Amino acid sequence: MKLRGAHALLFATLVFGASAVAAGQRAVGPGSPIYGVKLPDGYRDWKLISVAQENGKNNDIRAILGNPAAVEAFRKGTRPFPDGAVIVRLAWRYQSSPRNDAVFPAPQSFVAGAPTNVQVSVKDSKRYAASGGWGYGQFEAGLPNPDPAIARACFTCHQKLGKLEGGADFVFTAWSE
Amino acid sequence: MKLRGAHALLFATLVFGASAVAAGQRAVGPGSPIYGVKLPDGYRDWKLISVAQENGKNNDIRAILGNPAAVEAFRKGTRPFPDGAVIVRLAWRYQSSPRNDAVFPAPQSFVAGAPTNVQVSVKDSKRYAASGGWGYGQFEAGLPNPDPAIARACFTCHQKLGKLEGGADFVFTAWSE
Repeated sequence: MKLRGAHALLFATLVFGASAVAAGQRAVGPGSPIYGVKLPDGYRDWKLISVAQENGKNNDIRAILGNPAAVEAFRKGTRPFPDGAVIVRLAWRYQSSPRNDAVFPAPQSFVAGAPTNVQVSVKDSKRYAASGGWGYGQFEAGLPNPDPAIARACFTCHQKLGKLEGGADFVFTAWSE
Repeated sequence: MKLRGAHALLFATLVFGASAVAAGQRAVGPGSPIYGVKLPDGYRDWKLISVAQENGKNNDIRAILGNPAAVEAFRKGTRPFPDGAVIVRLAWRYQSSPRNDAVFPAPQSFVAGAPTNVQVSVKDSKRYAASGGWGYGQFEAGLPNPDPAIARACFTCHQKLGKLEGGADFVFTAWSE
């Protein structure tokens, strides 16, 4: 089994290796539909880019983290993002905190509840040329959502930002100092 | 001037050095009133603990970051926090994003605006024994707020959580996976 696993890994490395390395993808495991984006190893330890909060159907509070290539591009304002940049958006239920509100002067405190999903954007201008240079994946409990419609919807939405509108390169998040 | 500065630094190191090192304080510059807490070098690159959002007078969205000692304690559930743990809460104006809302299905998106302030909690059970083992500071544009009432208010509020209520050790934030 170990040898077979090693052979499979070798095969995967030979076939997908160059592109995967270029995109900073060291994770193993299943990838997202369409893009084959994987959950990057150690992404939870990456540096913070910014935070946001979504009402409506999402009803979440979120943190956007980046690998070193992404963080450097944000800090220097480099656009388009270089190949290898990876942005990870973590989200949790947006929920009132009665514990905090008991201490604060008024009911006003909202915190992160249970995790909802993690969305990953990987910049690889060649591999993902058809989607503006970005590959996308949504992960729940560490596994990619297998619905191709979910993966497809990422670019449908990011595309509306335009390639270079405000230097966006299809990215919603701006750096927060 | 240089020599006088060096002597002053030497004196400060001799008097406060051991405790400052124990608390992971490598920053130079002025400290907060009462506690002498400084803005730690490189805190913007620290790992994410969680996120939150406050309405009311604060009207902010925030990220809570930690130095390695704090993050390890959060991950392992170590309470009370060890000496040297430092928690940094960054906050930005909580503001609607018309840019995102133009793309999303409904007006629902809130993002981080201009930075408001940064609050720092430093664990040093000896130096800060009178305030539950924590020293506090609030920083605006990189400088400590000089009002002792602001610094004093930190513990007034954190104290209401109780030393070990829910394993809090006077800390509001819980780890978000």
